[in-house]
Amino acid sequence: MPAPTPIRNVLYIMCDQLRRDYLSCYGHPHLQTPNLDRLAAAGVRFSRAYTQGTICGPSRMSAYTGRYVSSHQVAWNGVPLPLDELTLGDYLRPAGIRTALVGKTHATPNDAALARLQPHSEAAEQLSEVGFEAFFRHDGIYPDDPLFDAKRDSAPYTQYLRDLGYDGQNPWHDWANAAAGEHGEILSGWKMRNAHRPARVAEAHSETVHTTDRAIDFIAEQGEQPWCLHLSYIKPHWPYIAPAPYHALYGRDQVLPAVRAASGQRSDHPVYAAFRQHEESLNFAREDVRLNVIPTYMGLIKQVDDQLGRLFDYLQSTGRWDDTLIVFTSDHGDFLGDHELGEKEFLLEQAVGVPLIVRDPRPAADVTRGTVDRSLVQTIDALPTFLEALGLPGAEHRLEGRSLLPLLHGASPAWREYAIAEYDYAFQAPARERLGQPIDSCRMTMVCSQRWKYLAYDGFRPQLFDLHNDPHELHDLGADPAHAQVREQHLGYLYHWLRNLKRRTTISHEEIERRGQRFRYGEPQASKLVPIGEW
Amino acid sequence: MPAPTPIRNVLYIMCDQLRRDYLSCYGHPHLQTPNLDRLAAAGVRFSRAYTQGTICGPSRMSAYTGRYVSSHQVAWNGVPLPLDELTLGDYLRPAGIRTALVGKTHATPNDAALARLQPHSEAAEQLSEVGFEAFFRHDGIYPDDPLFDAKRDSAPYTQYLRDLGYDGQNPWHDWANAAAGEHGEILSGWKMRNAHRPARVAEAHSETVHTTDRAIDFIAEQGEQPWCLHLSYIKPHWPYIAPAPYHALYGRDQVLPAVRAASGQRSDHPVYAAFRQHEESLNFAREDVRLNVIPTYMGLIKQVDDQLGRLFDYLQSTGRWDDTLIVFTSDHGDFLGDHELGEKEFLLEQAVGVPLIVRDPRPAADVTRGTVDRSLVQTIDALPTFLEALGLPGAEHRLEGRSLLPLLHGASPAWREYAIAEYDYAFQAPARERLGQPIDSCRMTMVCSQRWKYLAYDGFRPQLFDLHNDPHELHDLGADPAHAQVREQHLGYLYHWLRNLKRRTTISHEEIERRGQRFRYGEPQASKLVPIGEW
Repeated sequence: MPAPTPIRNVLYIMCDQLRRDYLSCYGHPHLQTPNLDRLAAAGVRFSRAYTQGTICGPSRMSAYTGRYVSSHQVAWNGVPLPLDELTLGDYLRPAGIRTALVGKTHATPNDAALARLQPHSEAAEQLSEVGFEAFFRHDGIYPDDPLFDAKRDSAPYTQYLRDLGYDGQNPWHDWANAAAGEHGEILSGWKMRNAHRPARVAEAHSETVHTTDRAIDFIAEQGEQPWCLHLSYIKPHWPYIAPAPYHALYGRDQVLPAVRAASGQRSDHPVYAAFRQHEESLNFAREDVRLNVIPTYMGLIKQVDDQLGRLFDYLQSTGRWDDTLIVFTSDHGDFLGDHELGEKEFLLEQAVGVPLIVRDPRPAADVTRGTVDRSLVQTIDALPTFLEALGLPGAEHRLEGRSLLPLLHGASPAWREYAIAEYDYAFQAPARERLGQPIDSCRMTMVCSQRWKYLAYDGFRPQLFDLHNDPHELHDLGADPAHAQVREQHLGYLYHWLRNLKRRTTISHEEIERRGQRFRYGEPQASKLVPIGEW
Repeated sequence: MPAPTPIRNVLYIMCDQLRRDYLSCYGHPHLQTPNLDRLAAAGVRFSRAYTQGTICGPSRMSAYTGRYVSSHQVAWNGVPLPLDELTLGDYLRPAGIRTALVGKTHATPNDAALARLQPHSEAAEQLSEVGFEAFFRHDGIYPDDPLFDAKRDSAPYTQYLRDLGYDGQNPWHDWANAAAGEHGEILSGWKMRNAHRPARVAEAHSETVHTTDRAIDFIAEQGEQPWCLHLSYIKPHWPYIAPAPYHALYGRDQVLPAVRAASGQRSDHPVYAAFRQHEESLNFAREDVRLNVIPTYMGLIKQVDDQLGRLFDYLQSTGRWDDTLIVFTSDHGDFLGDHELGEKEFLLEQAVGVPLIVRDPRPAADVTRGTVDRSLVQTIDALPTFLEALGLPGAEHRLEGRSLLPLLHGASPAWREYAIAEYDYAFQAPARERLGQPIDSCRMTMVCSQRWKYLAYDGFRPQLFDLHNDPHELHDLGADPAHAQVREQHLGYLYHWLRNLKRRTTISHEEIERRGQRFRYGEPQASKLVPIGEW
């Protein structure tokens, strides 16, 4: 019998703002996603996967570094990653694995550190792309403000549209993210009132299709050489607007009712109250807004699923399906009006819960194919999984995630007792001002165990939800005297987590052990390199 | 009346391994240090100053970064500082202040990061010297092992001795740190049995004198241009051996009795027990060792004091006394047999307590001259003090220390409730193996309030000492049921400290505020840069 094919490649697929429950394999009753369901049937679907940051930048930097937000320090979008942080490419590239990006990273160049250190040019380029080779970078959000002019004009997708004859200063907006009015006027996708209309771009040229094209280009170009591809779709992230026919695949009758506490039962937590005052929350609290947006959100997901079908077919036709570890996930979710919130800046399931489907092609994983795993897994587990799958050394002194391979191979290792997610609203001046918090005391931290979700806040009481008896998180037990012990237990987890964040990252455990044996500090009678304290 | 002279220079003097209680101004009954006493009389003496790390590297990196060990990550000697950490020179140099080193830093080049980033050469040089211009670097410890050959041969003090005719492969050892036997043989200073003998080097060429020479050279060279000088003596650090006449200034009758618990009252803490098994502890537990070493330790301190007298005279004769902020401190202490311990790897007062004397020359500080301040101050407070004294902006998102200027100027600000010190014995393989702890669970953390010292240990019960009623820390209350509440309070401080370590260092508070106002995320009806969630 021939040895099974080893894993040679990694395909790390990420959607942006895709809620965990908006795939049919995760239980959506109306949105059919047969291609992701096919991946789930061929791998393991994790039902309790959490992102470590609820917005793009923090979440993605956790994905690329394998570390918590408090460790990599990218507390919000637009915050640079410290140069000392190692990313996916730093771990894989030395092993000869081309590590490329197709799509979005939300990486922000660390200009201050680059100016101070002036690293050699190749390093500088990789640092600015958080370790990826930017085969096709598409961060996808280009407002008309002059601040974005340079970024938009140099974006390859802008060039792609222009080459196809899509005109204007901002074809990303005017064609891919806008509709046409009755008189040919441009109706912006920024306005949710236009969500039901078809985008002006042809579906074949839309962001989701072109991103898939480029992914296939990369894989084809790589041939039999090993690779790691981060395929990172901007959609279903807003602007909520889809090209035909995806704008009209779903109707208002397929929009699920909003998840909301009954009148008078809503949590009175001040931070929650402040976030309900955000414009997106006020708008999504309106039923007409939900009914106009959510069918399009579903259409955008359906389009991703169709494109993944095309990609998976390509992998199967080329043999890559059998030597590639495939991970599908999202960077965070979207409230879509649940809890009277929009966006994702709050640590409830709609925001922190992400889909996570992992396929290990090797026979060792046959035992779990098509199963659902309820372990508390995290975005930071992806990178350690890649390393183990590729047979590369881990980095115990840096990586805070855990390889999922034991779970994929049917083992039952002792697993983590809690998952962590963080959000810092210092950057959201309106909420911060409303709450009167100083700029360094705007943190929310989720500590989620199998049964309970505990949310710690700077300056305010915690919230607590019983996920068994209250899976929709409608009854806030954060001030309930009967649950003091549960809160204490979870505050203990929070302390444990803080205490064990990795803070000795410039020296490996192996090197510590090597030095410890070589020097034998303190050992009586031993021959020591530095003869301390001898008589 | 003319405006008072502003502070233009900073003189940051550090001894190595100097215990807080081994100066006459700190109460030593036999060791007279009139020059440091003179500085104390002209400034403020802090009686409760703590280092953040009890060995050289961690303590010094806290001094140079203004951050706790867990933040800068240099958990032990020989661990590289992350390149993202900013140091003294990064803060001062942009203001045109030449920032130089004369003496020791214990900096370890971050070779892995330098190789990865290949920064431009000037940056690389500064990074390898943790931000200093190495006017005269002298780390001072050069064992004969080939590992140290290159470092020793390229050291300017080696060259200095050779130029004077001190011969041999290792003149640092053979002359400055060794004595001569009756037949002219070299008796190594590494052996504490030789501590009572005079070093072979002439006093005028000894480390302490030459280091002072170079400091005066630097100040003279700088003339009227502003400077920051880190004058960092290797002594009274071992090898415990002093040049004549300092080897013989003190006698055995001037050695204070060892601080030790009465028989049967000694703490049974396993980590404490493990450290008592170290060679230096076993030797210092012997009275003959103490009596042979401590007079020399005192002599080495006396020599530093004499040299500081020369330096202070120079400053006064050149006008620098009036426009220079002077700080005198040590990186950590030395047990010298107290608690049956040698060295400094344990968080009792002999190791974590450091002298700290600060002189602000301006009239605003006249109100406190000659006073003693009992506030809990820390090594990390020096850098923020320098910045405020020089009128430079702070860096609230990075610096974890606090400026001492308010205390120097007689204000009574709300001050910190606890001081922190850390030690990690992962690197000490014998203790780690004896205790059976994994390499990432060898941490000790001191939380010291005005009255209590709480010591937290990975994997073992805490220790607790009542500094009011038990200033010598002889009665371990860590398992005493009557003190559960005190322990809980200090565990709460530990949580508070962990929670508030600065973990958002790549973006300033000012920039967060600027962006917050510019984007106004979530503000209804506001004109926002990115139009999120609009209807």
